[in-house]
Amino acid sequence: MFEALETGKFLDKDSYDEREQVLRDQLLQYQFELAQQQVPVIVVMAGVDGAGKGSVVHQLNTWMDPRGIETNALWMHSDEEESRPHYWRYWRALPRRGEIGIFLGSWYSRLLRVALEDKPDRARQAHRLTQINDFERLLTADGYLIVKFWLHVTRETQRLQLSEEAPIQQQNPRVGADAKAWWKAYPAVLKYAQKALLETDTGNAPWHLVEAEDRRYRDIAVGELLLDAMATRSERRDSPPSPPVPTNISRGQPTVLDTVDTQARLGKKEYREQLADYQNRLQDLAWKAHRQQRSFVAVFEGWDAAGKGSAIRRVTGAIDPRLYHLVQYAAPTDEERDHHYLWRFWRNLQRNGRATLFDRSWYGRVLVERVEGFASHEQWQRAYNEINQFEEQLVEHDIVLCKFWLHISPEEQLARFKEREATPHKQYKITEEDWRNREKWRDYELAVEDMVAHTSTADAPWTLVAGNDKYYARIQILSTLCERLEAALD
Amino acid sequence: MFEALETGKFLDKDSYDEREQVLRDQLLQYQFELAQQQVPVIVVMAGVDGAGKGSVVHQLNTWMDPRGIETNALWMHSDEEESRPHYWRYWRALPRRGEIGIFLGSWYSRLLRVALEDKPDRARQAHRLTQINDFERLLTADGYLIVKFWLHVTRETQRLQLSEEAPIQQQNPRVGADAKAWWKAYPAVLKYAQKALLETDTGNAPWHLVEAEDRRYRDIAVGELLLDAMATRSERRDSPPSPPVPTNISRGQPTVLDTVDTQARLGKKEYREQLADYQNRLQDLAWKAHRQQRSFVAVFEGWDAAGKGSAIRRVTGAIDPRLYHLVQYAAPTDEERDHHYLWRFWRNLQRNGRATLFDRSWYGRVLVERVEGFASHEQWQRAYNEINQFEEQLVEHDIVLCKFWLHISPEEQLARFKEREATPHKQYKITEEDWRNREKWRDYELAVEDMVAHTSTADAPWTLVAGNDKYYARIQILSTLCERLEAALD
Repeated sequence: MFEALETGKFLDKDSYDEREQVLRDQLLQYQFELAQQQVPVIVVMAGVDGAGKGSVVHQLNTWMDPRGIETNALWMHSDEEESRPHYWRYWRALPRRGEIGIFLGSWYSRLLRVALEDKPDRARQAHRLTQINDFERLLTADGYLIVKFWLHVTRETQRLQLSEEAPIQQQNPRVGADAKAWWKAYPAVLKYAQKALLETDTGNAPWHLVEAEDRRYRDIAVGELLLDAMATRSERRDSPPSPPVPTNISRGQPTVLDTVDTQARLGKKEYREQLADYQNRLQDLAWKAHRQQRSFVAVFEGWDAAGKGSAIRRVTGAIDPRLYHLVQYAAPTDEERDHHYLWRFWRNLQRNGRATLFDRSWYGRVLVERVEGFASHEQWQRAYNEINQFEEQLVEHDIVLCKFWLHISPEEQLARFKEREATPHKQYKITEEDWRNREKWRDYELAVEDMVAHTSTADAPWTLVAGNDKYYARIQILSTLCERLEAALD
Repeated sequence: MFEALETGKFLDKDSYDEREQVLRDQLLQYQFELAQQQVPVIVVMAGVDGAGKGSVVHQLNTWMDPRGIETNALWMHSDEEESRPHYWRYWRALPRRGEIGIFLGSWYSRLLRVALEDKPDRARQAHRLTQINDFERLLTADGYLIVKFWLHVTRETQRLQLSEEAPIQQQNPRVGADAKAWWKAYPAVLKYAQKALLETDTGNAPWHLVEAEDRRYRDIAVGELLLDAMATRSERRDSPPSPPVPTNISRGQPTVLDTVDTQARLGKKEYREQLADYQNRLQDLAWKAHRQQRSFVAVFEGWDAAGKGSAIRRVTGAIDPRLYHLVQYAAPTDEERDHHYLWRFWRNLQRNGRATLFDRSWYGRVLVERVEGFASHEQWQRAYNEINQFEEQLVEHDIVLCKFWLHISPEEQLARFKEREATPHKQYKITEEDWRNREKWRDYELAVEDMVAHTSTADAPWTLVAGNDKYYARIQILSTLCERLEAALD
């Protein structure tokens, strides 16, 4: 999930100044409104060491009225704390109604600290995660607004920060003494953090993942996300609700989709050879999976005209029809609408030893339903957690789960749309709706970025497919399927 | 928690007939209303084997319109189910919006089945509990109404049922073949059930614990509780909300308080001897706990004039003042009101090696706040779970937790009230409010019964103190404290 954050987001000084001006006015305004409404706010600032958590918190205190904010550092452990149940320290630091409590070091710290241990106790970690969810649920049920940030930097940036070799304008003041230990533990920290973030990314207390390489971007992003959460909450009390404050966090910023090399190409001859090779392998693997009674599930999502259909045909073309089931999803039927949105995917899940291919999937909840407003903010926000829990059940049942996003550039899409309009037997493929969706390219881009960041797990990773060249895309999909299956089967 | 259900509730035929008449009309009415409102309803029928789960479900189908009800037995396992992730079977059986799905055998079955195993895997059990909570939360967030019943019978009744020696009018038709295995595993089933019920007793999907010794009482109780849940949900949509349908489930039935022997007495001489003895022991134990840096927490709840104050004085009289802190709770202060209701208890928790004595406690949430309507139905329902989680944290911190309910009969209370009014130096102790509370005796009795059933755990049991005789009560409290401490200290 963290790789999705490494896209090189940054802000130049002019943009920063301009946005800061607007942001601080609005933050003050909503701080005041939530105080009036007696809403207590909890801000959790977490992230890898050296990402500048302290600096961001300092900035928030500068932007808002510090009289209504209490910052809890919790990095000095007192024996008063140690001699009581662990959560006592958090309970005593909870903000009053109408105030803001910022937690630098929080109920997540202990969880990540195990990265420094030799043999962490898995059952204990699981229990602590349950306690965190219980604690946050208890607070949100009581009216607390909880906003959680995870600041991410690469290991190299962390090294520069910790060694104080970073350019002066990126340096963050530090308090911890064990910088080297944390740097050594970087991969372990990310591993534990991923698990913790996935399991505590609930609709009530969602995580906001922020790339923290650039100080200016980092501070503005945190500020605008906090503003958005406060504004949404503030307006929940009024009726009728007005649309949330439009946030500009990602205006002009690269997303995870910009990491896809859309120029990747494959020659026709190479394609034919590789296609035959991978299709043969996949055919054998599907039978092998069947003999071992293992299933696999492949999810296909992507832009309109990205070539999902033709790519899926190359997959189905390789597998014995008795061994797979292809399901296509458009608008739900009446019966489906009468159930939970996940029901229509559960019902089509094939039995052991068979493959289920999903042409569009449960990710519609956080893509089209989010962008078109069919799902409320609360609904799609909650869906990341629901989807991760669903996929965890598939993985626990030993199902191999592959998820593909077929990516093309907007220019390529335009060319394909025009070709479709011009070609008689392809005209049925292009509708008014496709053109309308195209206008929301940026919204979808942001939704895809969030989706990848929140649902790309070790067992169920997203594969971003470079789709401008159809040959290249098909081979990428087939090879991924083969490799995942080969790794999973005995 | 289950002992609290063994009070001998029953209904004679005339009462049954009279109440059934009203009940079935209302059940039909709310079944129709929820169908109109497109609310899907899930009824989970769980309980020990032989408690008559099938018979109750049959009865519900008779009372309501079976066309809107689907009963899922799930006791025949198909290979279609086995070859998919475990929850697939439940997803496919979920009711449509506006319909009712009754689950006989549910996501709890697998959890209890481990009682038949030799060495259950604790981490796996914990994970399954988390999955259950996730599943139910996902459904309730989507608008499902979930009503869960646990039917309890004693082991002896179970034996009679399973051997078909029970009086014919109590016999329940049975489907399972492994009756003997279940009877042998009765204590293990209750152990696992207690853990499962406590951890899944959430505000959204609460458990209803029903004594199932008497068929008539059992059926009417389940029917009336279901009706109450449906009516509450139905009215949530209207505004302004009307008060829930008054349910008569416990009218005239004995509660757990009736199991307290209010006639228990202790002579003055015996009292003096035992008092000196236990106070000495407690004094030593408090120092020993201090040396071992162990804490203990004692909670005192009870009827007005039950003698809490004088009992607490016998406890504090035995402990070095440096080793204990006594906190009395009345209405919350402004600052306390500005926090979560548990905050004012967390803040007074003493450090390791000291005792904290709570004169009234967090149980106010499910007693006075429930009865007086200071907490909403949803709030006090949710509080059982929150309280259990809070106490779990105390126990995990090796705190010895004792909870006392001082019980007196209403006649004894009346006598004490009158004595207070007649005695000049005691008049300050009796107020208008005490007389008002007295009128709600029955409401409090039911609240106490629910409280004991939902929060009496192995590590934090309730002690119901026979308080009509003050001597007896004080010795019961002191001896319980001594025994719990002796068992816990090295």
